[in-house]
Amino acid sequence: MGDIKRVAVLGSTGSIGRQTLEVIGALPHRFSVIGLAAGSNTALLARQISRFQPRFIYSQDKTPPTGAKCQFLSLEEMASHPQVDIVVMATSGKWGLKPTLAAVKAGKQVALANKESLVMAGEIITAEARLSGAQLRPVDSEHSAIWQCLEGEKQKAARIILTASGGPFRGYSIPQLAKVTPEQALKHPSWRMGQKVTIDSATLMNKGLEVIEARWLFDMPFDNIRILVHPQSIIHSMVEFADGSVKAQLGMPDMRLPIQYALTHPERLENPQLPRLDWDNIKELNFEPPDFARFPCLKLAIEAGKKGGTCPAALCAADETAVELFLSRRIKFTDIARLVGQAVEEHKSTAHPTLEEILAADNQVREKVKEMAGDNP
Amino acid sequence: MGDIKRVAVLGSTGSIGRQTLEVIGALPHRFSVIGLAAGSNTALLARQISRFQPRFIYSQDKTPPTGAKCQFLSLEEMASHPQVDIVVMATSGKWGLKPTLAAVKAGKQVALANKESLVMAGEIITAEARLSGAQLRPVDSEHSAIWQCLEGEKQKAARIILTASGGPFRGYSIPQLAKVTPEQALKHPSWRMGQKVTIDSATLMNKGLEVIEARWLFDMPFDNIRILVHPQSIIHSMVEFADGSVKAQLGMPDMRLPIQYALTHPERLENPQLPRLDWDNIKELNFEPPDFARFPCLKLAIEAGKKGGTCPAALCAADETAVELFLSRRIKFTDIARLVGQAVEEHKSTAHPTLEEILAADNQVREKVKEMAGDNP
Repeated sequence: MGDIKRVAVLGSTGSIGRQTLEVIGALPHRFSVIGLAAGSNTALLARQISRFQPRFIYSQDKTPPTGAKCQFLSLEEMASHPQVDIVVMATSGKWGLKPTLAAVKAGKQVALANKESLVMAGEIITAEARLSGAQLRPVDSEHSAIWQCLEGEKQKAARIILTASGGPFRGYSIPQLAKVTPEQALKHPSWRMGQKVTIDSATLMNKGLEVIEARWLFDMPFDNIRILVHPQSIIHSMVEFADGSVKAQLGMPDMRLPIQYALTHPERLENPQLPRLDWDNIKELNFEPPDFARFPCLKLAIEAGKKGGTCPAALCAADETAVELFLSRRIKFTDIARLVGQAVEEHKSTAHPTLEEILAADNQVREKVKEMAGDNP
Repeated sequence: MGDIKRVAVLGSTGSIGRQTLEVIGALPHRFSVIGLAAGSNTALLARQISRFQPRFIYSQDKTPPTGAKCQFLSLEEMASHPQVDIVVMATSGKWGLKPTLAAVKAGKQVALANKESLVMAGEIITAEARLSGAQLRPVDSEHSAIWQCLEGEKQKAARIILTASGGPFRGYSIPQLAKVTPEQALKHPSWRMGQKVTIDSATLMNKGLEVIEARWLFDMPFDNIRILVHPQSIIHSMVEFADGSVKAQLGMPDMRLPIQYALTHPERLENPQLPRLDWDNIKELNFEPPDFARFPCLKLAIEAGKKGGTCPAALCAADETAVELFLSRRIKFTDIARLVGQAVEEHKSTAHPTLEEILAADNQVREKVKEMAGDNP
């Protein structure tokens, strides 16, 4: 058992959580599932419990799935439990913040798929990780690519080139974008992901949030992070070094590879589930600059990141609220950026905020956006 | 002075030698030139001596350039001299073998640009390097790319993807290839190189020799080395790992980057000479499989590599002779592959040869090829 790492998967019924369990299921000699935490999908959670027999569970409605004989823990207790070696943070939204912070304070290896943790509280989380020795292991394919490219290098990157698929509406005009339906926006050309992140990919807000994450994960000034649209999603990102040499990480667009690398690092393991690039069928890779005019969310995110304080939290809260409004057909696709822009502009930022101040900003901005959308209860 | 590495440049007046001195000239706080060795270009050697003030020199005609006050050494003495930290092996052809072996036996850091050393005597040189602790640092852009991609990885590569520009005649038919002139063949689309290697790039023999080098440098079975034609020469090669993840190294086609990396590894240094990729002007990267029918040298080289023994030496000798015959207009471009194929087929290989057996095979095959071409003196 000494070699088997015990993994707690927080957000086990979401897209990343399910794919994490696929990877662990393929590598039973190396990983065991010690904890599973889910939101409202108790039926799937029950099946996962029955298959992986975790010691600890959590479900949002506090009732254990039928037949489960495991210990109930809060998300923060599970994330920091001494028996847990690796915490996979795959919960979505601001609910990831406190458990991520708990895992980081406990010095865990944190496979981080929750974007909001670093976007909203990057300063706090990276400072705590430096204190505790916790290792933040990115699960996003882009940040995993950068991490892989930096492996073994003695110096920091000179520049990061974050690739973006450009989303399903890459070629759309602004009038075309205004007519986009939720059904269209939920069809991503290359990745299999949850709803919120799929819409964020269509607005490019997702790429903007990734810029903020990269800033914290790799201690990189915003001006040294460049976005490059690469529709095939085969180059997952690149790093430029002091001597001008560039390293890129490539692979099929499949989240199981970065998930597995976050679990196995610094090793790599064979896993027949993982697809391989087939160079017989890759004829070209294309690149183009991002269009900030048609995809203003990208610029809004970078600006919020540069302003810092509670601005990124305001951005996240405004975006999540606006995406919900769009999915329930109460606003247009192009209103997402408009509402987010207005909310961030009106937000009074607090510098070097505490977690409480960040969560207060989140609440306040959510109300504000609903009000702006004429949707105040 | 403790931090300044003393570099001997063997083949200082050739293309790689000159570019090595450009790099060292830009980094005087890190490197000094302790030795310079050249062939027949004594005028350039004299200028290099006057600029870099080396302690040791060698020139092929044994007469010191006018005014030089340095010690004359043989190539092998210089390559193994205790005061030398790094040996840049940039001599061309089989003349590189003995000095490379001397440097390796002396446990030096060997920046290896001489292809023939590993192609003809890879078994001997890698065995000696294991004994002495010498480090073979590739200077070829492709092998440097692979080396950079492997940096920090805990495991060997699963597969190497060696990229090839495809040369200037990538789209030519066999009848068109038969009419190629030396002037056409000497115009390489992306790289600035010497004559022999430029012709080898046009026949793809160069890529075949690189496959054999990769086999020895990275201890990789031939069947796990794949060639991919990539006309832009921006991805310099790639490595696939056990988990299916692929890393690539990219850069402008400029030999000074891999030369500098071979000198500075594991560090990277800023050098304003080195060009950077400009993603505003890179719209696409293209890939296609190599055509073994139109470029039979590629297949001949891989087959000779697989056969082993003195076959790769026979291949090198036949190719060098055939390229000379082509450059002096005594055979057609397509005759290069024909003569090499015939010479290697008729060659009686010796398994696990000594250096003497390798050099004897070389001599014998050169005579044979001249005879086959009707050029026997």
